Amino acid sequence: MSKPGPIFNHLALIGVGLIGSSIARAARAQGAVRKITASARSPATRRRVAELGLADQVLETNAAAVDGADLVIVCVPVGACGEVAREIGDRLKPGAVVSDVGSVKAAIVRDMGPHIPNGVHFVPAHPVAGTEHSGPDAGFAELFVGRWCILTPPDNADPAVIERLAAFWRLLGANVESMPAEHHDLVLAITSHLPHLIAYTIVGTADELAEVTRSEVLKFSAGGFRDFTRIAASDPTMWRDVFLANKDAVLEMLGTFNEDLSQLTRAIRRGDGAALFDHFTRTRAIRRGIVEIGQDSPAPDFGRAHPGLPAELPRPYAVSDEN
Amino acid sequence: MSKPGPIFNHLALIGVGLIGSSIARAARAQGAVRKITASARSPATRRRVAELGLADQVLETNAAAVDGADLVIVCVPVGACGEVAREIGDRLKPGAVVSDVGSVKAAIVRDMGPHIPNGVHFVPAHPVAGTEHSGPDAGFAELFVGRWCILTPPDNADPAVIERLAAFWRLLGANVESMPAEHHDLVLAITSHLPHLIAYTIVGTADELAEVTRSEVLKFSAGGFRDFTRIAASDPTMWRDVFLANKDAVLEMLGTFNEDLSQLTRAIRRGDGAALFDHFTRTRAIRRGIVEIGQDSPAPDFGRAHPGLPAELPRPYAVSDEN
Repeated sequence: MSKPGPIFNHLALIGVGLIGSSIARAARAQGAVRKITASARSPATRRRVAELGLADQVLETNAAAVDGADLVIVCVPVGACGEVAREIGDRLKPGAVVSDVGSVKAAIVRDMGPHIPNGVHFVPAHPVAGTEHSGPDAGFAELFVGRWCILTPPDNADPAVIERLAAFWRLLGANVESMPAEHHDLVLAITSHLPHLIAYTIVGTADELAEVTRSEVLKFSAGGFRDFTRIAASDPTMWRDVFLANKDAVLEMLGTFNEDLSQLTRAIRRGDGAALFDHFTRTRAIRRGIVEIGQDSPAPDFGRAHPGLPAELPRPYAVSDEN
Repeated sequence: MSKPGPIFNHLALIGVGLIGSSIARAARAQGAVRKITASARSPATRRRVAELGLADQVLETNAAAVDGADLVIVCVPVGACGEVAREIGDRLKPGAVVSDVGSVKAAIVRDMGPHIPNGVHFVPAHPVAGTEHSGPDAGFAELFVGRWCILTPPDNADPAVIERLAAFWRLLGANVESMPAEHHDLVLAITSHLPHLIAYTIVGTADELAEVTRSEVLKFSAGGFRDFTRIAASDPTMWRDVFLANKDAVLEMLGTFNEDLSQLTRAIRRGDGAALFDHFTRTRAIRRGIVEIGQDSPAPDFGRAHPGLPAELPRPYAVSDEN
């Protein structure tokens, strides 16, 4: 039995939002690294990161933060990663590992790749985990436990380096899988990007109806709608970048989704109950599969808390024995 | 301060699934009624209801169950309510209140109304609450606490009767609001029916892709997809009936949704980041509104549990001091 211990000496985090701050907390808690430096664009974030003690040093420039680092993880929105790579390229230590956490991978390879010098290892990564909250306060050390981190190493990557980065993520609690960047983008288009697009759409639709007030939408949201609002509360910058960077795969999945929606719409219009019942029965099995492999809670309603019953008879009803 | 106490003497529940059994448990816990009779179509359910002690008597026929009841709540799928009303019509006690829990209301009025005799009060109701689980074991007494129960009384309904039914639901923890059946169907089309249709669609889409395996869909579902699978695991019979019974309102909402989806799709295709950012910022506010009025948990990720960090360094990575 081996004890958790440092896998890298010096970790540099570029960006300390939900994901960056969760990596910092988890890496600290597990002793995965000996030293953490970080950079953040806004003074408010830098101050907060220092207050929270998430890093040994919080620096203003990305270039300064990566100085001497063995592992650099870029934790900024996908659209900003290319510029970050340009800024840090010259300052990277020979032999260092550069990675990221972006939800799109082919665009990351395209945008960051050219700025990574020879002798530095570039292994893009995507921990499939998150919440609807953003910023350094939103992170927590357990975010990655039981979730999957997908690595998309280039063909010529050193297997020992891949394994070292995989070990880092496993120490943070994640399961690790490798696949080509293009396949990642297709898989995530259906398991993450399209669900977000649909959720953003329907929440917007509900907010603009003439016949139903916003107050009614909020009050009666427990009928299903509220589940979509959590996803549609995700960080707007991050998601703008995801859709711009993974356009082709998202549009492809959207095409299939639209065909399927047309088919169900037709069944409703024609009153074809058998077709609806068959479809609804099939989808139930997927949920069971997700719960069985531990990717969601078996508790009903995601395990949402239910407050207790009222202790008093609500006014104005008066009890009489004749009732 | 009044203590909770009986609001009706004898409650009859027709159907004892998730909703029926939750009403039974809550009514018992609150002393809302003195006696509960129930009927269920399948012998297995009747046996289980008896084992769970959810009713004083579990009967085979709906007609027998309502004998002498002061409040009858029909808790079967919307499509079966008309037939139930036909079966029980002759056996209803004069002065009794007949209600239901269906997710569609105009169809209930149309199907049940003609079978309710003069002298019996008919006040349709819809508690906007539930989980993805079904059957008598899935119910719990706190299901309705803090949720809304919508009453759609006919124009000529006795206000005292409406208030008595409202008091019953408030004692079970619900907030109560009245509105016309047609308006209910429009409101629920957007807050419940369309979200379910969309969730059923996307889960089906994911399951049929050629390029992405089911195993990949399940493993990487934490990217957002898993949230949709909960809703798409809801009872197929119930939801088939909802879509057949609320066809017009669902198709209307679907039309608006499709327009909005086309607009976002166009923004993605054109690379219009500003339009995407604006939309995603707007939808964030809706989530805040729902959390503020207590219709969802403020905890990130619906309050899903997060297991702890691994206590050991995952194999096969070996720690060395040079790292």
